[in-house]
Formats: sequence, C-alpha cells, structure tokens
Amino acid sequence: MANNLLLGKRGIIFGALNDKSIAWKVAERAVEEGAKITLSNTPIAVRMGTTNELGEKLNAPIIPADATSVEDLEIVFSKSQELLGGKIDFVLHSIGMSPNVRKNKPYDGLDYKMLNTTLDISAISFHKMLQVAKQQDAIANGGSILALSYIAAQRTFCGYNDMADAKSLLESIARSFGYIYGREKGVRINTISQSPTMTTAGSGVTGMTKLFDFADKMSPLGNASADECADYCIVMFSDLTKKVTMQNLYHDGGYSNVGISEDIIDIYTKNME
Amino acid sequence: MANNLLLGKRGIIFGALNDKSIAWKVAERAVEEGAKITLSNTPIAVRMGTTNELGEKLNAPIIPADATSVEDLEIVFSKSQELLGGKIDFVLHSIGMSPNVRKNKPYDGLDYKMLNTTLDISAISFHKMLQVAKQQDAIANGGSILALSYIAAQRTFCGYNDMADAKSLLESIARSFGYIYGREKGVRINTISQSPTMTTAGSGVTGMTKLFDFADKMSPLGNASADECADYCIVMFSDLTKKVTMQNLYHDGGYSNVGISEDIIDIYTKNME
Amino acid sequence: MANNLLLGKRGIIFGALNDKSIAWKVAERAVEEGAKITLSNTPIAVRMGTTNELGEKLNAPIIPADATSVEDLEIVFSKSQELLGGKIDFVLHSIGMSPNVRKNKPYDGLDYKMLNTTLDISAISFHKMLQVAKQQDAIANGGSILALSYIAAQRTFCGYNDMADAKSLLESIARSFGYIYGREKGVRINTISQSPTMTTAGSGVTGMTKLFDFADKMSPLGNASADECADYCIVMFSDLTKKVTMQNLYHDGGYSNVGISEDIIDIYTKNME
Amino acid sequence: MANNLLLGKRGIIFGALNDKSIAWKVAERAVEEGAKITLSNTPIAVRMGTTNELGEKLNAPIIPADATSVEDLEIVFSKSQELLGGKIDFVLHSIGMSPNVRKNKPYDGLDYKMLNTTLDISAISFHKMLQVAKQQDAIANGGSILALSYIAAQRTFCGYNDMADAKSLLESIARSFGYIYGREKGVRINTISQSPTMTTAGSGVTGMTKLFDFADKMSPLGNASADECADYCIVMFSDLTKKVTMQNLYHDGGYSNVGISEDIIDIYTKNME
Repeated sequence: MANNLLLGKRGIIFGALNDKSIAWKVAERAVEEGAKITLSNTPIAVRMGTTNELGEKLNAPIIPADATSVEDLEIVFSKSQELLGGKIDFVLHSIGMSPNVRKNKPYDGLDYKMLNTTLDISAISFHKMLQVAKQQDAIANGGSILALSYIAAQRTFCGYNDMADAKSLLESIARSFGYIYGREKGVRINTISQSPTMTTAGSGVTGMTKLFDFADKMSPLGNASADECADYCIVMFSDLTKKVTMQNLYHDGGYSNVGISEDIIDIYTKNME
Repeated sequence: MANNLLLGKRGIIFGALNDKSIAWKVAERAVEEGAKITLSNTPIAVRMGTTNELGEKLNAPIIPADATSVEDLEIVFSKSQELLGGKIDFVLHSIGMSPNVRKNKPYDGLDYKMLNTTLDISAISFHKMLQVAKQQDAIANGGSILALSYIAAQRTFCGYNDMADAKSLLESIARSFGYIYGREKGVRINTISQSPTMTTAGSGVTGMTKLFDFADKMSPLGNASADECADYCIVMFSDLTKKVTMQNLYHDGGYSNVGISEDIIDIYTKNME
Repeated sequence: MANNLLLGKRGIIFGALNDKSIAWKVAERAVEEGAKITLSNTPIAVRMGTTNELGEKLNAPIIPADATSVEDLEIVFSKSQELLGGKIDFVLHSIGMSPNVRKNKPYDGLDYKMLNTTLDISAISFHKMLQVAKQQDAIANGGSILALSYIAAQRTFCGYNDMADAKSLLESIARSFGYIYGREKGVRINTISQSPTMTTAGSGVTGMTKLFDFADKMSPLGNASADECADYCIVMFSDLTKKVTMQNLYHDGGYSNVGISEDIIDIYTKNME
Repeated sequence: MANNLLLGKRGIIFGALNDKSIAWKVAERAVEEGAKITLSNTPIAVRMGTTNELGEKLNAPIIPADATSVEDLEIVFSKSQELLGGKIDFVLHSIGMSPNVRKNKPYDGLDYKMLNTTLDISAISFHKMLQVAKQQDAIANGGSILALSYIAAQRTFCGYNDMADAKSLLESIARSFGYIYGREKGVRINTISQSPTMTTAGSGVTGMTKLFDFADKMSPLGNASADECADYCIVMFSDLTKKVTMQNLYHDGGYSNVGISEDIIDIYTKNME
C-alpha cells in the first residue's frame, strides 16, 4: 500500500522498543514510503528490546542515546545526517516515562525528584532535540517534526498522574518552538494526540485495559490503532501537509469531541433501572 | 507529484467556481490522485463560472444544484453514484455566502431574513448533504467528508459578520453528524479551517487584502494557499487518515496558535510612532 | 446571604417558567442582591406557568413576549426602561426549545423547518435581543448580558440533537456581538455552560436522568444546581467582573475538564462484568 | 465598595511584592471583604519589597518562604492556620520567574538548568503548595485556590519564552490536582488568565510596553487592570462560585476571543496604502 509519500526523505525515529510500539510502526511505514531512517532509543532499551531486529530489517542504523542528554542528541543528529547523506526531513519523538507512575506514587503524593525526571524524559527531551537540531541546522527546509501526546494534556484521567502535566508541557514546547523554527526555516512541529494504545509503555499505566475499552466505546470509529497512527504520521511527514504547524492533532476515532456515546450510556445505566 | 492516494475512489466536489476556488484545486488534485468525481454548484454559478471547462478537463460530470434544496441534493447523490458506478468515497463542501455581507449590513444591524439565508447556504446545506447521503446510503464505508471553515468560528474578526456564526454552526454540524455517521457507517466528517484565501468569494469580504496580509505576517509559515489546501484535503480523503473525525483542522501556517509574531509587532510599533 | 452585589441595578430576566427554572432562581437572587427587574416569557408560558406568582413576590412587572419577534423585544426593552426608571444593567437569556427533540426526530432525520425554529428560538433570539437593545441604547455602560448554554456546543451528546447546533450558534453570537457592544459601550456578553439541570425544560430531554447522573459522577464537585447557577449569574452581573467578556464559562463542578473519573470507571467496569 | 464576600474567611496570599503587584491588590481587597490573611513571599523579596508595609496596613502576618521548598511551604500552611485560627479558605499563587528571560537566553538557546528553575518556581511550586496543603488537611471544605496565568499557555508570544511552557504546566497542575482535591474535599482550583499587567514582574518582559498596548487595542474592553483582577479573584474566592473548578478563566477584556480588532487593523495598515 505504499504511495511513495516519503520518497528520498531522511528521518530519525526515537522510541521504537518492540513491534507493539507506535514508533516501530512509523519506522516500517516510513521506509515503505521511500524514506531512509535512523533509529534511536536509550542504550538500555536497545539492549533489552528488539530494536536491532528492526534496524536490520529496515537497513536503519541504530544510534543509542539518552534523550535527556544534549550531548547524546548532538551525536544522534550529526551521525544521522552523516549516515543518511544530508539534512533530516522528519523526526518522531515517541518518548515518555514517569517514575511516579512506576512507583505508584499518587498525584497528591508526588516525589518531586521523580516529577523532574518525568518532565525531563517525556517533555523537555523534545525541546533538547529541537534545540540541538536547530543549532546544527540539521533539519531540511520544510521538514516535519512530530511528538506523540495524549488527551490527558487537556482533561484529567484518573491514573495518568504526572504524565498529564508532561504532555501539557510537551504540547506547549511544540507550539513555542514551532513558531521559531517555522519562521526561520519553514519547519513544522506538531503533536499527535493518539487514542490509548496497547503498547508496552501503555500497558504499564494502571487501569489501562479499562481506559482502553472505555475510550473505544466512546469513540464513534473506535480507538485508533498503532498502525493507523503510523499512517497519520506518514501523512504529517509528507509534503502534502506543509502548512500545518503548532497544532495538536487528535487521532482518536472522534473521542475528543464526544460527550457521551450511546454505547457508554447503555453499559453505564445497565444496573440503574 | 501524484501518489495514487485516491486510486479508484469516487467523489463529489461542491463549490468549484473558477480556477481560484479551493474546490477547483481539490477537484484537479483528486483526479490527479486517481479519483473519479462529479462537480456540483448552483445553476447560476455553473452558467457564470467556468465550471464547464473544469468538467471537460477532468472528465467530470457537472450536476447543478441549489445546496439548500433537499431535492436537488438527492439528485446530486443519486446521479453521482450512477455516473461514477458505486458509492461515494469523499465529498467536499466548499459553499458559503452571506447576503448581509454583500449588502453591507453591519453585524449589529442584521437583516434576519438574510441571516437565515446565510445560515441555510453556508451551514445547514452541509447537514442536508449529510442527511440525504445517509438516507440514500450513498457513502462507502470509511468514506471521508470535508467542509471548509475559518477561524472566525472561534474568534471575532471585524468584517466577517454573520459568516462567523455560520462557520460555528457548520463546525457543530460536522461534530454532531460525525458521531452518528461514524458509529453507523465508519464515515469521517471533518472541517478544515483554512487561512484567508484570495478566492473570488474571499475577495468579496471587506478588508480582505488587509486581513490576508495580517494573517500572513502572523503565521510563521505564512498563509496556506489554495493549492496547499487541496493537498491537505487529499490527505484527509485518503485511507491514511481513517480515524480522524469530528475535528476542526487548522490549515493556516500556524496562525491559530500565535499570539503575536515579531513581524506584526514590528510593523505595528513602527506605525504607532 | 445578600451581599448587595446588584444594589440599584436594573435587569431583565427572560425564561422564568416555574420554581425549577434557573431564570426563576436568578430573578429571586437578583432582587435579593438589590436589583429591580422585569420578567419576560412567551404569552403561553406566562399563562401556563407560575410566572405571575414570581412577579408578585418580587414586585417585578411581567412583559410577555415571543423572543423571536423583534417587535415584541422592542416592547420588552422600552417598557423595562420605563418601568425600572433607566437603562438596563443586566439581561439573562434562558430560552431554548427544539421541535425536533419534542417530535423525536433523530439528528439524521431532522425536519428543516423545525431546525429553523430551534435556531430561531434558542439562538437567533439572543441576537435579536442584543440588536434591539443596542438600537434603543437600552443597556447602561458596563452592563452585563448572559445566556445559558451547555457543553453540547463543544462535544456531542447522543440525544441532545439539534440543540447542540443551537448552542454553538448561541455562543458564537455572544462572541460576535460581544466584540461590538464591548468596544462601543463597555457592555459584556458571556455564556454560562451549565451542568445538566433538572428544570422542566431539562427533564424533557430524552435520557435526561441518565445524563444527569453520569455528569454528576464525572464531576469532582458534582453537578452545579440551579441555585448555584443563579449565584454565578449574580457574580457575572456584578461590577466585580467588568473585564470578562466574549467568554463561555463552564459552571459544571469540573465536568468539562475531566476525561474519566474514578466513580464512572468503577460503575462502568462493574457493569461490564 | 465592600460586599462582605469573604466575611470570616481565612486566606494566604503568595507574591505581593509592592503596590503594583496583583497579589498586593488581592490582599487589600480580601481584607476589605472581611477576610483575615497571611502574606508570603521569598525572604529576599520580603527584604527588598515593601511587603512589610502591606502587612502592617492589613494586620497580616508575613511568613517568608521559598515557594520551591516543601519545608518552607509546610511552615506557611501550618503557621497560617495557627495565626488565623483555623483552616484556610482561599489561597492565591502569584509567582513566576524565568532566569532564561532575565539572562536574555532565546527560546531556541535555553539553558536547561535555568529552564528547570523556571518550571520549579513558576509551576511546580503550585503543586507543592497543593500537596502540602492537602497533606496537612489545611484547606477548609469548599475552599478556593487560584493561580495567575497568561494566554501564552495557549498561543505563542514572541519574547514570553519559557514562561509560556511554565504557564501550560501550571494550568495542567490546576486541572490534575483540582480533580483530586475537588472530589475528596470539595476544594476548587482554577487559574485566571490575566491581561498583560504593568507589575514589576511584567515590566521585566522584553517588549512589555508594546505587548501591553497591542493587547489593549485588541481587547474590546481594553486590558484588565490589577485592581480589576483583584475583584475577579475575590469573586472566585467567595461562596458564589462554588461549582467552578479546573478552569482557566480569561480575565482580559475579551482579548482571547478576538481575531483582529478594528483598532489594530487601522494602525497596522496605516502605512500600507
């Protein structure tokens, strides 16, 4: 089903852990659409995950990096340009982690050092990526940069914890940097606010199965899958969306604009009568 | 630059008046991407405009229709299915007109009969289209329907007058109907909120040149052109955006999320002195 | 609990049907806070309802009017100024009705004449009120005008039908006219987006009990009551909110910014088993 | 002009530096409305500013505290309860500072240690306040907590720099914590998005005079002043707004919902012709 949408383009995909990852799907689809890419993930994720397998399959060099380290990011961007033979056309940021969530700290009992880590990994890493890229003038004119977000940035979901704040910060960074990078280099920066997705990261969220099911029944088209999200990323990387920037784009089967669906109200009221 | 994104698809384009029209560009691009289409516009627009020329060029039958007439719309949808040989995959609604604007009635001196006409032509026509299509079961499963909107639906622009209210209503219809049509048939309904565009209709708005220039200097990527809008429509019609529905999508070079740009503040300040 | 917030002010309250009406509570509270008011409702509602009782209790003249009739509204505003002895400081628009809802027409089977009536009564009547008031220069400088809305203007609620579109239009009118009236006369225009409320009108909506209960359990503070809404209206009419205009203000116990609450997910999950 | 809106209530005001500060005005108005309060600010601000003068005038104890220090905040909340004789009914967070702004680091050349400081002082301090308060059960049932924000949280303003990200984070914290504190204790948490204001902090922003003037001419009611903001805070602290929570409330003369005003377009196009 390739449409050559990324023919001749160069990209960097951050965050492909295993074949359930959205980033993994994006990497596969990007190559299918004609792009050459590099993959980056934390050294430990590279060791633990199956990223190498993906790299081999797609002929994509892997550059391990801690996305909170400016030095590591500098290497990713300089090496990627070198390996891919030119400036970068697209970047995917699919990175997020909260130690508070992992350690079951409730939102009204946050560990503040852990909060800093949540924000640093899940949001500030995006700013670092953009700042490094711009300082290296690594992104081609008209390039497209995406980060994955979630509607918890706008509305509170019990259990999503300090990741909600991280996503708000992430989306703000996309806007703030999007203005500058757009104006100076014609580079687009957007976030995609994706349905709850059964990735390895997603599965770690408490009550994820319930949340997933609830969202699925609320959305007229059902939840968007990781594969569908990859398609949407391709479109946003392509030259057909060159004037879309600083936006948070809901990719959620309609969820964000539904108040109550018939399916939800039926189940909800089943035992009321 | 075709990518076969609409290969084998059938579409209806409402509102192609002349080669400045966004609908005109969408029609051209849709065919270029492999679609077969019909064109529809008011009988008078068909006579006055150059729609026929486009129809011949694209081998696209023209079905004149008053978009406020349910009967006319029934003909458009039944004939289009007949002529194109199957259910419709995509529809573009690019229709808007305000007699109050034309007659220079200010917003605090509206003629209410004219307001009804504004709403009927510019917004309710979209509901009629959707209701007719659904009653005929004319849209293929997974089909995509778009209407063109403007940010005046969210913020007040002096001079845009009752068209602002019409666009709010239009976007609401997209959400309300999108829920139903999505749930029952997997059909997506979205609006694209486009930069001010120098179409024949756009040029009629008082102060359009100033508005266009202001928006252009506010937007980090500059205003989105009609051609770029056509590209974005293609993407939204394609199978790569199947889980995007009930959304209002800004296609505006970043305008919607800019408070003040450096260009604007510079000119503004210079003129203040 | 009076705070003299409206001491010496003059107001018009549209839509007080009976003692469950929000408008009824606002009327009572406005008088309690020191205002003099007139009441207006449709002739038939005046006859059927208990508005007269309220009028006597509050010493408030009743001026029957069809809010879709410019002539009737002209009488309401001129008579109110005459009876209250000066320009009007505040106005409440609490008017809404959908024949499509009453006749159980589904949203994908709307009667378009009925839709016109829905929009005319529930939204355009607000524009007519504002236009009449401005043409009579009936509102005192710094005056405050409110209309009651509902979150269906932003998100789809199955069963709310074409009233969702009417509320979108209503909120757009508040913005569009708010710009003009603010700039020229310092008059504020806002909408309050209220929790589902068990008024006579509210109870007519299909599935209202379920909707009410769902919203109540979704909102961290529970649904806002009619009495609490009246308090909020008083505040918005007072001189303490003079720079708030063109806004849609959620008065909903937090509902609008909650994705999923623990109460909802608990009941939902239990019923799934 | 007192209305006894806060009669018998106890409050804590953070951030009153001098008589231009919004927090200063809120403190004065709160006492005028019948409240007893304590004041808190950084030790250095207490020494440099004229907070002591305000404390004496209002008979309000001053408790110096670094708002990024959990220990300091614990003292503020425990001492305030002790000194005021009971649980706290309202809190104002009017705290913000960016070393990146002070050192003229551009947004695409941020110092990341400074960014951490910006976020810690301007946003995370709010979470710390809320967490400390909740752990001490220091807020009375139905209490009201406010933080001051700015529309840069939603749209990019050149020059506002990383404070935009801080404000996004701040507003997210208000939502996330508002859900929990509302549900468990009926406590409301909101942010007020205020017009640019000529406070000592505001005057430090590059191009503040231009920004102030631009916003003033864009807003139909002009910019909201510090005094008017204080009035709005009083209203949000009072019992008349008990069901408003998790909201970001624009107090801006209509600015947020204006696209272009006539005044702006006139000045902007003065030299175009």
